[in-house]
Amino acid sequence: MGTGLTVRWALSHDILIGSRSRERAGEMAERLRRLAVGFYQNQMRGSITGLENADAMKAAEVVVVCFPPEATIEAVTGLRGHLREGQIVVSTVVPMRRRDKLFYFKSLGAGEGERSAAEAIQELVKPIPVVSAFQTVPAAYLNNIDAVLNLDVLLAGNDEVALSIVSRLVRDIANLRPLKVGPLVNSKFVEAITPLLLNAAILNGLHDPSIRIVPWMPTP
Amino acid sequence: MGTGLTVRWALSHDILIGSRSRERAGEMAERLRRLAVGFYQNQMRGSITGLENADAMKAAEVVVVCFPPEATIEAVTGLRGHLREGQIVVSTVVPMRRRDKLFYFKSLGAGEGERSAAEAIQELVKPIPVVSAFQTVPAAYLNNIDAVLNLDVLLAGNDEVALSIVSRLVRDIANLRPLKVGPLVNSKFVEAITPLLLNAAILNGLHDPSIRIVPWMPTP
Repeated sequence: MGTGLTVRWALSHDILIGSRSRERAGEMAERLRRLAVGFYQNQMRGSITGLENADAMKAAEVVVVCFPPEATIEAVTGLRGHLREGQIVVSTVVPMRRRDKLFYFKSLGAGEGERSAAEAIQELVKPIPVVSAFQTVPAAYLNNIDAVLNLDVLLAGNDEVALSIVSRLVRDIANLRPLKVGPLVNSKFVEAITPLLLNAAILNGLHDPSIRIVPWMPTP
Repeated sequence: MGTGLTVRWALSHDILIGSRSRERAGEMAERLRRLAVGFYQNQMRGSITGLENADAMKAAEVVVVCFPPEATIEAVTGLRGHLREGQIVVSTVVPMRRRDKLFYFKSLGAGEGERSAAEAIQELVKPIPVVSAFQTVPAAYLNNIDAVLNLDVLLAGNDEVALSIVSRLVRDIANLRPLKVGPLVNSKFVEAITPLLLNAAILNGLHDPSIRIVPWMPTP
């Protein structure tokens, strides 16, 4: 997910890739930079830089959390001290597990009921606002720089300013449509669409399905 | 929801409308029958009949439960004694409430955590299998006999035979696509898409939104 967002946003934004290893971040940044430059040519106005996680978080205006679900709580707990007021955190995390060939929503951490990943992150980083987004956009779409993304991105969050900024970032990826669906408490149900989509793919022979909200079309 | 399904299915199926009042059921059946005959003309192979709830449930092969959420538990509890082995129950119920202008998933009954309506009904009618379906199809689409329904119907259920039969019933409505998303425990997340869609409509100026699963399109 992170690599796809990086290449898409680098057309117009300065992207900082965070990693535990600065060297690995630098290598990934260089690989994605070449891909982006090759595709956007001299229309590319952004940049891609690799940093250690802490340095990336300090410098960023918007911090996109796309850790694997099982690593998210520990990673955010270790890094949250580097956040500062005025930043926005975006959670793309989908907490799920696989059982008997199908996928199910599964909260991060133990004994926490069915809390969303975005709420778990919000608890850790408050008062920095968290916006939940991008869960239903398949990484394979985003990573394929040629792919046209006629998709909807559902946004949940409690902070209107943060929601507006993330909506704008969604619009900065051609053809993606941001759709607000209410406060962060709804993030669970957005996150839970992803295991449904994966099950729909497995059980009905689809490939990398995503969703599109279909508006009412008045008919004759 | 029930009226739309009745008119759509009456093209090829015999529909029994159940109501507490046989007279009211009969009036509704007559109204919908006229609509269906006017639209399908002599291609209509099904029928529409109004009965008391108990008589409708006894005679039906597939029982579609589309009570308002707040009435569902009491109504199904009162009627379940009329079900018999070999029948299938379809739940279209969306348990939700409105608060501060937006919609939220809200379990049926009190103190039951966040159980889906379909699981609550399954508990009441076991061992008759329950299939969860149609929650994301706006009633306004279904009710408009002219509307072309290029939509997906997500199906959750534990009984493969019942799922196959309901899939076929979905296909019997032109252009609807049935997509299985796993066992009944996933119904909660299907049901919870409806309040997300309504919120998306309210917050983003859409009208009667529904969803379409978009398959992966390999690009150049």
